[in-house]
Amino acid sequence: MKINVQRVLKNLEELNKFNSTLENGCTRYSYTIEDQKAKKFLIQKMENIGMKVWYDGIGNLHGRLEGRGKDKKIVVSGSHIDTVPGGGKYDGNLGVIGALEVAKTIVENNLSINHDYEIIVFVEEEGAHFGTNLIGSKAMAGKFDVENTKVIKDSSGETMYEIMKKAGFIPEDISKTKIVSETLKAMVELHIEQGRVLDTEKKSVGIVKGIVGLRWIQIDICGESNHAGATPMNYRKDPLVEAAKFIGNLPEMVKQYGDNSVVATVGKIQSFPNQTNVIPEKVQFTVDLRGIDEENLDLLEEKMNEVLEEIKTKGFSYSTKKLAYAKAVKSDEKILEIIRKSAEDEYFDYQEMYSGANHDTSLMGELTDVAMIFVPSVDGRSHCCEEFTEAEDIGKGCQLLFKTVYQLCQI
Amino acid sequence: MKINVQRVLKNLEELNKFNSTLENGCTRYSYTIEDQKAKKFLIQKMENIGMKVWYDGIGNLHGRLEGRGKDKKIVVSGSHIDTVPGGGKYDGNLGVIGALEVAKTIVENNLSINHDYEIIVFVEEEGAHFGTNLIGSKAMAGKFDVENTKVIKDSSGETMYEIMKKAGFIPEDISKTKIVSETLKAMVELHIEQGRVLDTEKKSVGIVKGIVGLRWIQIDICGESNHAGATPMNYRKDPLVEAAKFIGNLPEMVKQYGDNSVVATVGKIQSFPNQTNVIPEKVQFTVDLRGIDEENLDLLEEKMNEVLEEIKTKGFSYSTKKLAYAKAVKSDEKILEIIRKSAEDEYFDYQEMYSGANHDTSLMGELTDVAMIFVPSVDGRSHCCEEFTEAEDIGKGCQLLFKTVYQLCQI
Repeated sequence: MKINVQRVLKNLEELNKFNSTLENGCTRYSYTIEDQKAKKFLIQKMENIGMKVWYDGIGNLHGRLEGRGKDKKIVVSGSHIDTVPGGGKYDGNLGVIGALEVAKTIVENNLSINHDYEIIVFVEEEGAHFGTNLIGSKAMAGKFDVENTKVIKDSSGETMYEIMKKAGFIPEDISKTKIVSETLKAMVELHIEQGRVLDTEKKSVGIVKGIVGLRWIQIDICGESNHAGATPMNYRKDPLVEAAKFIGNLPEMVKQYGDNSVVATVGKIQSFPNQTNVIPEKVQFTVDLRGIDEENLDLLEEKMNEVLEEIKTKGFSYSTKKLAYAKAVKSDEKILEIIRKSAEDEYFDYQEMYSGANHDTSLMGELTDVAMIFVPSVDGRSHCCEEFTEAEDIGKGCQLLFKTVYQLCQI
Repeated sequence: MKINVQRVLKNLEELNKFNSTLENGCTRYSYTIEDQKAKKFLIQKMENIGMKVWYDGIGNLHGRLEGRGKDKKIVVSGSHIDTVPGGGKYDGNLGVIGALEVAKTIVENNLSINHDYEIIVFVEEEGAHFGTNLIGSKAMAGKFDVENTKVIKDSSGETMYEIMKKAGFIPEDISKTKIVSETLKAMVELHIEQGRVLDTEKKSVGIVKGIVGLRWIQIDICGESNHAGATPMNYRKDPLVEAAKFIGNLPEMVKQYGDNSVVATVGKIQSFPNQTNVIPEKVQFTVDLRGIDEENLDLLEEKMNEVLEEIKTKGFSYSTKKLAYAKAVKSDEKILEIIRKSAEDEYFDYQEMYSGANHDTSLMGELTDVAMIFVPSVDGRSHCCEEFTEAEDIGKGCQLLFKTVYQLCQI
């Protein structure tokens, strides 16, 4: 059995039309007109296949093919169709269209499944509309409720509560979104890689062994502000020099204490008062630390703190603040084995890897066994209109998703 | 002969009253009502001593005591009375009140002088009103004319040209401000140190051997922006890591290639796009490099460029831009010898040092022999309301200025 790659590409094109910046990438915020039109398109497609379709309390769209098994559970696939402003047409969308193609392939081949197969189109994954991401999957995991919608606002200041109501949802029903873990069998999500590993290594698919844990730490180092001209070098307590040594040495620390899934990034830095002729009083920067092994992340944090303590002995002060924290999610070994075996059966060149970015699967991983399938992002570009994946790779990704889901539905 | 320190302190207090933020430091911008009232106060003081008083084209206030010599020239002392917002009452002001005290001491002791003694109150030294500093002394050196006033604007967008006219000056007369070098004998400026060297070393006066040269260089390092999660460490071209290594190593480079007058500071840094979860595409930072020896500054610039070239070989690109450039000014050895000798005669504890900050004397150094006298800034604080110098040190600084100026007026 083969999925139909032309149908997938056509559906991706169609979906891309529900888009407020058609000439400049894809912009589709959750709960907007574009989003509702796109969902209507998906509802029609799912209903045409004979799926049962409904919205849950938060606005995740579900479509289900009934399984014939006795003690059946639910095998989930899906992703999101909301985008960042001026984003691409593959991020999220491919996982939804791919999941749809799986259902279509099952139905048009008259395949019978034991477990239910359910497509979920998770709402507000990107966080572009309200500044909070993964809202749909958080609600399914019971980590987001009506109270949150009353404080979260869009850029114009309107609450998510109001916006949901205008879109026809009842925010008070969010609590009903929470899903009982025991009803679920597994979830597999197809997604573009958003990095350049597969493209560089010339592999068509990535088998995702886990989604790395994430820690965002803000570090402030305070020294002594002084006139850049009137303060000899040996009179200085320049926090930017210390911060720079820390940042410059971070890749070395990762090499020394991390495993090969660990990455550490300083993306944001600010000097105070940030003037050419003033030795800074304070430097603030963020460390984005990720890795699959929580113990190694702990070790790295410990080593970073040791360096900061050493800086302190030189007369500086520092503080650290956790801005975000997400635990690593390891993929289920049984699912991974199914994906590997399927890829080998199809002679697909694959690479085992970790996902450095979070996905709806991260939250679903708290409820059931999960895994993900990646396809290459050309030049690693994503969240921009240059986002692109070759048709051949899209086909292979969807085929792998189909084989995996179908097998999961049988066992 | 002794100057009268109580009179100096009283005059400093009086001058501080012409101030738009009386409760919160001293704010006195050039050409404002406060500035004009303060100048009127100074005019009265100078006229009372019998000085001839006038404004030049740019608005520098001059007061002259006639010398009796035949081939007489002009010995200048003075400073500025404009301040940064919420600044101190000593920066600039002390040099003006000290120069006034010198004239008063000469007159009340019936001392005869050979050369003319001239006080100059330089306009717009700080650059707080128009963003361009040392305007009064630049005009005297022929480096600022009416055309400049038409493009320079205050924060409300009004041109300096309009503001000068409103204050009663004729911008077209700025060209007449330029002074003929041959008419000058010397200039000595008394100023607070604005750093913490004298305070730390417990010295009452600093003898300034020169004002260091200044080079402001903006450096851009460009790498490759990528997703912080999805890009393994060995796939990265992170310009912030390279910039950090550069900045962290800068003090070491100064130690290796600079003399003891050299300082290098990175005060300003910006990461693009400056987001926690994005490997920066570009980092821009400034280097403020100062030192008395141009050759050593050249060498350091060369070494910095070598480091940048090395970064380039790793696949980064960079550019540098000179934002400002001012040559070092060495004090005149004969004047320094007079100051040293006078300090020793008075049993003042002094320290020979360089000025890391620019002063009106920098520009006047292009026209005549110069030197400066520093008094301590407690805790190195300046450009803030905590700026403070002990009365005893003020007295010693003024006494040294008097002895130096008096001797210069005789030889």
